[in-house]
Amino acid sequence: MHVSMKKLYTESAQFDNQLTELLHRDQPSENGVDELVAEVVATVRHRGDAALYIYTKKFDGFDAEARGLEVPQFRLHQALDAIPSKQRESLEYAVARVRAYHEHQQQESWQIAESDGTILGQKVTPMQRVGLYVPGGKATYPSSVIMNAVPAKVAGVKELIMVSPTPNGEFNDMVLAAAVLSGVDRVFRVGGAQAIAALAYGTETIPAVDKITGPGNIYVATAKKQVFGKVGIDMIAGPSEVLVIADDSVDPDWVAMDLFAQAEHDEIAQSILLTMDDVVAERVQQSINRLLPTMERADIIQQSLKNNGALIIADSRDALVSVADQIAAEHLEIFTQDAEQLAQDISHAGAIFIGPYSAESLGDYCAGPNHVLPTAGTARFSSPLGVYDFQKRTSIIQVSQAGAQSIGQHASVLARGESLTAHARSAEYRLQSEGD
Amino acid sequence: MHVSMKKLYTESAQFDNQLTELLHRDQPSENGVDELVAEVVATVRHRGDAALYIYTKKFDGFDAEARGLEVPQFRLHQALDAIPSKQRESLEYAVARVRAYHEHQQQESWQIAESDGTILGQKVTPMQRVGLYVPGGKATYPSSVIMNAVPAKVAGVKELIMVSPTPNGEFNDMVLAAAVLSGVDRVFRVGGAQAIAALAYGTETIPAVDKITGPGNIYVATAKKQVFGKVGIDMIAGPSEVLVIADDSVDPDWVAMDLFAQAEHDEIAQSILLTMDDVVAERVQQSINRLLPTMERADIIQQSLKNNGALIIADSRDALVSVADQIAAEHLEIFTQDAEQLAQDISHAGAIFIGPYSAESLGDYCAGPNHVLPTAGTARFSSPLGVYDFQKRTSIIQVSQAGAQSIGQHASVLARGESLTAHARSAEYRLQSEGD
Repeated sequence: MHVSMKKLYTESAQFDNQLTELLHRDQPSENGVDELVAEVVATVRHRGDAALYIYTKKFDGFDAEARGLEVPQFRLHQALDAIPSKQRESLEYAVARVRAYHEHQQQESWQIAESDGTILGQKVTPMQRVGLYVPGGKATYPSSVIMNAVPAKVAGVKELIMVSPTPNGEFNDMVLAAAVLSGVDRVFRVGGAQAIAALAYGTETIPAVDKITGPGNIYVATAKKQVFGKVGIDMIAGPSEVLVIADDSVDPDWVAMDLFAQAEHDEIAQSILLTMDDVVAERVQQSINRLLPTMERADIIQQSLKNNGALIIADSRDALVSVADQIAAEHLEIFTQDAEQLAQDISHAGAIFIGPYSAESLGDYCAGPNHVLPTAGTARFSSPLGVYDFQKRTSIIQVSQAGAQSIGQHASVLARGESLTAHARSAEYRLQSEGD
Repeated sequence: MHVSMKKLYTESAQFDNQLTELLHRDQPSENGVDELVAEVVATVRHRGDAALYIYTKKFDGFDAEARGLEVPQFRLHQALDAIPSKQRESLEYAVARVRAYHEHQQQESWQIAESDGTILGQKVTPMQRVGLYVPGGKATYPSSVIMNAVPAKVAGVKELIMVSPTPNGEFNDMVLAAAVLSGVDRVFRVGGAQAIAALAYGTETIPAVDKITGPGNIYVATAKKQVFGKVGIDMIAGPSEVLVIADDSVDPDWVAMDLFAQAEHDEIAQSILLTMDDVVAERVQQSINRLLPTMERADIIQQSLKNNGALIIADSRDALVSVADQIAAEHLEIFTQDAEQLAQDISHAGAIFIGPYSAESLGDYCAGPNHVLPTAGTARFSSPLGVYDFQKRTSIIQVSQAGAQSIGQHASVLARGESLTAHARSAEYRLQSEGD
């Protein structure tokens, strides 16, 4: 078992086209999904719990009407007791580190007072109720619960509602334990587009939320898009990606294993090595072939690397920086002697892992920073999930009588310039009051 | 000419339903627009400038192929000289105040060093290139240019590209002057869905951007939704709204004029008075009828107030706060003796104008805060446009060899708990290095 990674050279005249093809970021939307999801959303919206019972029986084989949509609190605490103590310790360690990191993201309200008594500012407040979607089945990850729930609670969200499909009604204990340790307030056994609709519009049992976060399949993602506007949503995540920049200062086995770690997620994950040294690329390719047969998920890794993996050889440092910025990777590992400088020179990435000890997998679980990161090049304009995603701002404008004179005069001129005379007269009323 | 505002009482058993009906926030999407816009976007994407020439001739009557898509720099500076000096002064005043306010929104990169040498943090960087859509025709507002462009430039955006449809190729001088004063770098004469597609994908003439902001009609809004993911977008704005909370401490004429100022935008704008005092509601109704015939845009105001306006009488302070939070208004004016306390007690609003001198129209133009605000109740989960909308964050993870030992052990446990063994082995490689 082996896999020959595609090799791309920045000096090639074909490179730009090859890179575009490699990244293939323009996914066509799947036919029929929109309509199906729209129907599910409308049904849940109008029929509430009754619709959830039907869908949950149909899709999850779970009789929520008889057994209850909500997971009882005692069941959550049972999960905490059920898992091995080593796992519990590691979950607690992860929650503590993720919380400590995210506390640095607290945003503060601010106000400034001008000399005439006018006060301007912004008030920062948490969202009141947030919904967290957790996928069921093979992709049930306790780390995902921690990464979504902890920043919401650090932000001050009062009520955090988790939903997850449960085949036959049963949960993964590690997921429930992560929920308890992360501060999730209530958990419901419902998934898919129906769960998103319930969170957006509320049912008799499930309260409506202000924002929904968390990963999901195409139905969940489509439902999130459809309810956006009624509630806030997080980014729709694409396939996970890693870009490793390496020179000969790092063990090629480490690089190969990090490429595998990304590739083992699923066949559509993307792992790319970027180097200025053809020998490094060659050694990593050898490590890949030597290590691949030893991997538990070798089939998935092989498929992912074959379809989406690549070794890119840059002919200059400038070309290397430029390629990294074009890719704008979700995860960027830099294992070179000038790693710190490169991290400053590269503008776009979701997270940058600097130096050979900074394996992405440490960040995936418990280094502290969030593992929910912008994919598919969206790091050019978006950010890791954070406390700021669970807070909102309100502008504060408290104009003094004196302040209204100068501001009002100019507002009047500009409003008349836009032919909005009620705006102008509203400002002018405050001027007339000079004579009061 | 007069208008009788709807009157709602919170004590009524019907109130919740009446309020839901008044806010009618579930707009159906218009049929056919999605398909039409998808075709325009695809055509621009594949044919570039050639498609822009055709659409611009068809929709704007402007021969961009012969006269050029880009507005020359000298033409921008001509506009600055062409407008009356009073208007120029007011534009400069507005830009200066908006800039000063938004400078308080600067976000800083941060790093923390742990005792074992591990460094964690977040790097804040500006987006590189941003597109600003400015509507043409009757809704061409220089204030809108200022409110979108200034925060982008304060954020550090290197290149700010403005697009606007120009009937027959001609611009409003005040809009061009506002663009120059706000730091817009390049201006193109193209509008509609075709302009959004050009900004998202780039053409021979128009460079692709990372994010698109600015208001537009249903075609523009739909195109923004369709290109979202390829580029970032701002919120899709609904009809503009004001909620005025008043007691008998404010002149009812001021309240009436502020309701008019919102209503004069268009027939779908919404103006609501909320008070605990039926007499206040009555006096404002009288002011409305007395002042309405004196208004330049009386027809639009009358239509807007008749369709969407209301006087809401709350039977307690708690009810008043609760209604304000349910509405989560884009603009909230509080003209009561306890205005400052109310502003603290109400959780959801785009902007709060405190005290009778804080007319919304001052904020629309030049008080300093942004006039691009969350509409239709989205203030529950979103914020005014700001510097933070033009910056993005990158997580920084630099784990030391010592740090990798503790973090790596727990990451390994959690990864094995998720059956992701390449993740685990990647972490474990860093443990083995203890023996190095």
